[in-house]
Amino acid sequence: MKKDNSPARGTRDLLPDQVRTREHVLAAITDVYERFGYQRIETPAVESIDRLQGGQGGENEKLIYQILRRGLPAVLEAGTAVSDLIELGLRFDLTLPLARFYARNQGALRLPFRSMQIGPVWRAERPQRGRFRQFVQCDIDLIGEPSVLAEAELIEATTAALCAVGLADTCVRVSDRRLLGAAADAAGLPQDTWPTFFIALDKLDKIGWDGIRAEMANKGLPGSNTARALELIEHLQNTDETKIADTLSNTLPDIDDRVITDLSTTAACLNALGMPYGRRWLFDPTLVRGLGYYTGQIFEVSHNDMPGSLAGGGRYDRLIGLSSGRDVPACGFSIGFERITELLSQTPPAKQVAVLTEADVPVPDGVALATRLRADGRDVVVVPRSGKLGAQLDRLYEWGFTSVIPVQLREGHMHVEAERPLRVSKPTQ
Amino acid sequence: MKKDNSPARGTRDLLPDQVRTREHVLAAITDVYERFGYQRIETPAVESIDRLQGGQGGENEKLIYQILRRGLPAVLEAGTAVSDLIELGLRFDLTLPLARFYARNQGALRLPFRSMQIGPVWRAERPQRGRFRQFVQCDIDLIGEPSVLAEAELIEATTAALCAVGLADTCVRVSDRRLLGAAADAAGLPQDTWPTFFIALDKLDKIGWDGIRAEMANKGLPGSNTARALELIEHLQNTDETKIADTLSNTLPDIDDRVITDLSTTAACLNALGMPYGRRWLFDPTLVRGLGYYTGQIFEVSHNDMPGSLAGGGRYDRLIGLSSGRDVPACGFSIGFERITELLSQTPPAKQVAVLTEADVPVPDGVALATRLRADGRDVVVVPRSGKLGAQLDRLYEWGFTSVIPVQLREGHMHVEAERPLRVSKPTQ
Repeated sequence: MKKDNSPARGTRDLLPDQVRTREHVLAAITDVYERFGYQRIETPAVESIDRLQGGQGGENEKLIYQILRRGLPAVLEAGTAVSDLIELGLRFDLTLPLARFYARNQGALRLPFRSMQIGPVWRAERPQRGRFRQFVQCDIDLIGEPSVLAEAELIEATTAALCAVGLADTCVRVSDRRLLGAAADAAGLPQDTWPTFFIALDKLDKIGWDGIRAEMANKGLPGSNTARALELIEHLQNTDETKIADTLSNTLPDIDDRVITDLSTTAACLNALGMPYGRRWLFDPTLVRGLGYYTGQIFEVSHNDMPGSLAGGGRYDRLIGLSSGRDVPACGFSIGFERITELLSQTPPAKQVAVLTEADVPVPDGVALATRLRADGRDVVVVPRSGKLGAQLDRLYEWGFTSVIPVQLREGHMHVEAERPLRVSKPTQ
Repeated sequence: MKKDNSPARGTRDLLPDQVRTREHVLAAITDVYERFGYQRIETPAVESIDRLQGGQGGENEKLIYQILRRGLPAVLEAGTAVSDLIELGLRFDLTLPLARFYARNQGALRLPFRSMQIGPVWRAERPQRGRFRQFVQCDIDLIGEPSVLAEAELIEATTAALCAVGLADTCVRVSDRRLLGAAADAAGLPQDTWPTFFIALDKLDKIGWDGIRAEMANKGLPGSNTARALELIEHLQNTDETKIADTLSNTLPDIDDRVITDLSTTAACLNALGMPYGRRWLFDPTLVRGLGYYTGQIFEVSHNDMPGSLAGGGRYDRLIGLSSGRDVPACGFSIGFERITELLSQTPPAKQVAVLTEADVPVPDGVALATRLRADGRDVVVVPRSGKLGAQLDRLYEWGFTSVIPVQLREGHMHVEAERPLRVSKPTQ
């Protein structure tokens, strides 16, 4: 009886063409990151549930795949709490595991440490088009560098990596978490309302200014203060990238000087880099980024051909301290790998030869021919002749073979014909 | 407060040097497999628990990481069965997911289909030295080829892949599941005792002939029949690889002719290949292999420097039918990736340059120099000068940098010194 052979809900199988494109993209990205001195590490897919639910993961903590403790009785006693059954969870990002990794292994690492991570993460989100419950993230993090040189380098490296995979037409939006706090403070919003304010502001892309005003009112934020805070933020929008310091100190006179110095320095670095190849950047004071752990500058990369962001990151100077007991400055940038593969065309396969053997050719002879061709660096498959020749050649072409070498027996000896390309004169429609 | 930052029990973090070696090994293996026309696919880490516990996984089914259903109440009712709480599990091998993948996607795949899979699997085994609860498998499978040409090709490709990573001194042991059944049958062992007989026989490497005889007696197998079956199997040992057919038909006259033909054909193919580069093979009738789904020839690769096996596989002609409703011949070979990385020395890192900038060098200038060097294909990190020069150079050397380019300010201009290798004249102890 035929069973349902779908992959688990919200996940997917990857076919050979898809894997080839993904591997090609990953190779291009890691090549760029290695040029910048980033070193690849790996952590396990599972982490302790206490660490994953430690309050640093924002909304993602609600989406954890939870793994059952081992050695439970087959039937549970009354009043058993589900939380008592759980020991581990699948990671929902690569940053929380990195903080643990760094706290544990820092003695064996460079300082500052440039980390590169590529691996799957899991979030039990409501399945929807183009979003999967298992997806790959591709992160770089610079740990131990307190200055915004980290931010500038991460932005340069990430846009260079996107450029290397053919996504040159990107735009980086840069802001600072502390700036939002300063605006809310200057507008007299009580500090306990800030999270609500930020969450609503984060929806600007989707629902616009009027939408977020309505949402803030619905959530009971005091109208006049909200209006003032939004006014301040709107006023900062479209600031010329060479005049950030002036505009900020005029608009938010009580803001910490370091926020201004840091943004000016990042701006100077990015302007000095010239952001070649059509890469652009802009200051965007409406940027929020959802996750709980950011403490300073934040950034996102967008692309003309796609709503939402291709990559995002920021500074999180207090996350590692929660693991190591001592704060370590850190800043990271994560590429949404699944999203960028959607934007890219498929990678053409390597040339592949079919050694097409008639039935009477002794098998070891065909195999030996294939082995010789492989020794020359060719990709070779022995294919027994079957059915009508034309139909078989069509099928081989559809399957991605680029040429055939027909082999037959003539007077008891193996006769190898010349290699023939498949369909040079008859291109596909 | 410092927390316990160990990875989850039985799992491990991988440091930069380890990941580099692993990536190097994987690249070498995939390169060989691509020469043979194997196409890489991917399936999700999670599968439905019903599929994982379908009885095909042998002992591994007891080691599944089980994932909790979502939307459970916080506190459970009395009498709740643990099995009702579970929906998914982490895969314990790559073959069960492949069977599902093939049943679902066969219309989009070549026939026969040469599958390559590289990915983590999870087994909640008792933690012990050198064994981990998350580990990588590296599988090739040939689906749709009924003859032992599949076996011969898989053995050639796998030994060639091991050879490519520097493991030339391997030995492939080949047998057939059906042969063990024929021996047990010829000795008059009742069929319901065969699994006990096979499980004990599988321990031959560890406890020797006397040990397995004792274990079989303990488990209540009839002594005289057991003795006879073991005698038959021992008699087949050390059969000359050119005389397998004769020895088999003399020792087990009732064995299915196809077992003899298949083993002779595989032997002829392997002998014809010559198994170059020191690779060897032998017929080993004591081979069992634990998993439940094998139906024909089975094989394992061992290496002089290590007990146990580096790779193993076999034919499983009935597994895909359980998913697709129609049996499809299939044969696979899995490399124990973690084990082979233990046998290999570390891969030397790429050459990496430190641009060593004195404090007064304007940051954008140092960054621009690094960007230019990267454009030439170099791996470059900007490192600010700090502390004593000798100590800093020693540290850079220990961290794996291969050269430095000192940069300082002279009369207001950036002065770039010539690149200096680290420690050419002063090798490490």
